[in-house]
Amino acid sequence: MTDALLTRLRDELGRGSVLTDPDVTASYRHDMMPLAPHGAPLAVVLPADTAQVQAVVRACAAAGVPIVPRGAGSGLSGAANAVDGCVVLVLTKLNEIIEVDADNRLAVVQPGVVNLDLRHAVEKHGLFYPPDPSSYDWCTIGGNLATNAGGLCCVKYGVTTDSVLGLDVVLADGELLRTGRRTVKGVAGYDLTKLFIGSEGTLGVITRATLALRPLPQAPSTLVAAFGATAAAGAAVSRVVREGIVPSLMEIMDATSISAVEQHLNTSLGAEAGCAALLICQSDSGGEVARRELAAIEQVCRDSGADLVHTTEDLAEGQLLLAARRVVLTALEVYGSWLTDDVCVPRTRIAELLTGCARISEECGLRIAVVGHAGDGNMHPTIVYDPSSADEFARAHRAFDEILALALGMGGTITGEHGVGKVKREWLAREIGPVGLRAHRAIKAALDPANLFNPGSMFSLD
Amino acid sequence: MTDALLTRLRDELGRGSVLTDPDVTASYRHDMMPLAPHGAPLAVVLPADTAQVQAVVRACAAAGVPIVPRGAGSGLSGAANAVDGCVVLVLTKLNEIIEVDADNRLAVVQPGVVNLDLRHAVEKHGLFYPPDPSSYDWCTIGGNLATNAGGLCCVKYGVTTDSVLGLDVVLADGELLRTGRRTVKGVAGYDLTKLFIGSEGTLGVITRATLALRPLPQAPSTLVAAFGATAAAGAAVSRVVREGIVPSLMEIMDATSISAVEQHLNTSLGAEAGCAALLICQSDSGGEVARRELAAIEQVCRDSGADLVHTTEDLAEGQLLLAARRVVLTALEVYGSWLTDDVCVPRTRIAELLTGCARISEECGLRIAVVGHAGDGNMHPTIVYDPSSADEFARAHRAFDEILALALGMGGTITGEHGVGKVKREWLAREIGPVGLRAHRAIKAALDPANLFNPGSMFSLD
Repeated sequence: MTDALLTRLRDELGRGSVLTDPDVTASYRHDMMPLAPHGAPLAVVLPADTAQVQAVVRACAAAGVPIVPRGAGSGLSGAANAVDGCVVLVLTKLNEIIEVDADNRLAVVQPGVVNLDLRHAVEKHGLFYPPDPSSYDWCTIGGNLATNAGGLCCVKYGVTTDSVLGLDVVLADGELLRTGRRTVKGVAGYDLTKLFIGSEGTLGVITRATLALRPLPQAPSTLVAAFGATAAAGAAVSRVVREGIVPSLMEIMDATSISAVEQHLNTSLGAEAGCAALLICQSDSGGEVARRELAAIEQVCRDSGADLVHTTEDLAEGQLLLAARRVVLTALEVYGSWLTDDVCVPRTRIAELLTGCARISEECGLRIAVVGHAGDGNMHPTIVYDPSSADEFARAHRAFDEILALALGMGGTITGEHGVGKVKREWLAREIGPVGLRAHRAIKAALDPANLFNPGSMFSLD
Repeated sequence: MTDALLTRLRDELGRGSVLTDPDVTASYRHDMMPLAPHGAPLAVVLPADTAQVQAVVRACAAAGVPIVPRGAGSGLSGAANAVDGCVVLVLTKLNEIIEVDADNRLAVVQPGVVNLDLRHAVEKHGLFYPPDPSSYDWCTIGGNLATNAGGLCCVKYGVTTDSVLGLDVVLADGELLRTGRRTVKGVAGYDLTKLFIGSEGTLGVITRATLALRPLPQAPSTLVAAFGATAAAGAAVSRVVREGIVPSLMEIMDATSISAVEQHLNTSLGAEAGCAALLICQSDSGGEVARRELAAIEQVCRDSGADLVHTTEDLAEGQLLLAARRVVLTALEVYGSWLTDDVCVPRTRIAELLTGCARISEECGLRIAVVGHAGDGNMHPTIVYDPSSADEFARAHRAFDEILALALGMGGTITGEHGVGKVKREWLAREIGPVGLRAHRAIKAALDPANLFNPGSMFSLD
């Protein structure tokens, strides 16, 4: 049976695009989330176009073999992790930027295009594709669509779903569904586009996307503020929101993150001087407006008790300041492996979340660094542990769960941008409740009745 | 059977909230779209809270009587039109603004809240709810959600779906589904919020919404430009888009609209001097930025061949200029009844659409005025006809259809913001094709297996 399937896949895609050697397929078994389970695939296939994707879906459907779609593997929820005996459908060969229509501010792309490559391609036309997950230099648009990825820009420009006009999706019966449109507005029928975005490969395989682009913003000006108390930093974020200031970026780092980065970069960010939190903000409005926006943020920071505020219009200096934020996960590796969580809380409760994470860190006896997109309330508490110690691994897992419970209890969500995947299934059920779960199962059964796509990911069928 | 249902409804809601007198229910039979069919309801019910909505849904489900949900009735697609023997479920009594959380920039509202009332309520907190359909002084948020309503603001602030964080929805089994969240970001599960938005009452009844608010913009500055040729106005729109200028409003009026408004307001807008199209633009960026944005638009208009460009920072004058745009439909009533269409085309093809509508007008022998949201490509060609003439009505219907065909042929959509309802069912099937239609039917069957909600609207089940 499986032999027949492999033969059919090789016939359709060519031998070189159907990988079965376990040493080769091993690197396609999981994404970047160490807590999520993963199995051994029957094969890893790399179709070259939509027709080949359709052929794979039809062949697997006929054989009753599940499909796990996958992009670059930068995910942080195990959504792209293989299940035993599945076919991992890798979309990286579909990597063409088909069209950039500058006059209508849109691009048509295949799912395997790397986020950064798209950004560069549209920049040449004076245009901007906002979603910028931290892995933007290697993650693919297909993965961004499947997880409704966010990033640092969201505070001003929204998440992936806010930049998508339409999709081509291969359904479980192998048919090609076209959703959405090329126009800016459109309400013809259900919003299937946004249903597939964030569905984490459980409903179909996206093979093409029409993306809305924005005018390229001005070069950013940057502000960094150091606070001696977490509560003061949290208050500053709340007040920026309350006063209607919309920076293009507003990131927070806690004391643990700051220390790790100081050690990694061999620089001082103020930890020794008692810095409990750093806020890094940017404005991309340019000129006088950017100066006014950052001046207003500076005032809010000082009023909230910042010990130090520094503003620069120098692009290189701004990049350097932001690099401190971007390097946190790498910096933490001097202490051990990291496990990054992803919660979103009301923007007024960020300080509470930081305090709560410090308590969990103490209780679990593990270092937890909190970095995040303060302007959205989307925080990434990152737990450091020794993976060779079963005890530390268990404690890390417990801390991970306690952070989720903490965020839910604050009126937040268990995932702001990384998704549910195979690591937060039970937590999704807890967040959305039995009625929500039934609605999810009904939609899954409607579009994928044989449970072909990514079975067991996001939620269980019973 | 129906007597038993009426008794049950009266028991649950009270006698005064269950209307059956045909003279009274007549005004709940249809919305503002004259082409859409409508039937005679068994009853019109006005529940006062979510529990009563659930009771109505359970009672109707048990009796096998269809439900047509309805807000104020300002719709333009017949989506809220009664079908014979149905229960019209009117949500206008659920009209409470439950919460305005200024610190987290969100509001929680019931569906019967009038759009303008919400706008005023949040303005007091320095906040802004962007969606502004033309009927904003009487349409309700529930109807806005059901149709994913747009308006004049969309060019800068998006449509209704872009301002919604979460919903409470009564499902076909009477259970209450909670979708979404209160946080800015969140990807826990399928995006059911955006699936219900724009589903036109076919999947459930929205009884509460959590809405994202924005900082209140600055008072708008206004520019009006007059063009001797339609193509020049179209070129100006394209160039504004191309140059990355984002006005907060960008409306277009064609020669027929201009003449009608001149006659109605007894003023001159330039029709006699050969004005073929007016563009009205606003910037709400305030101060120097607004001046720069409008100066850039002025330059584009002049370069594109505008005969006259006038800019004002005076609020009253700006409102007066915009009033000319807002009064078009009323102004057309001197010629007869109007039938407004709603298409969206790529922004580069607006001039083509205007020219095409002029040709259709000539062929059908009916006046067609084109007004629309030029910045989005969302146009409202409005056909004037005599409803007492069967021949004119038939020609009006033909013109309506030809405009849809024209827009589809230009890579556009059959509806930019009014929806499909009971007037564009066959056109939806044409736009989304058989695979799209199957996906719609599967989702409808998954969430409303007995076809309880708004049967026959948007698409047929077979």
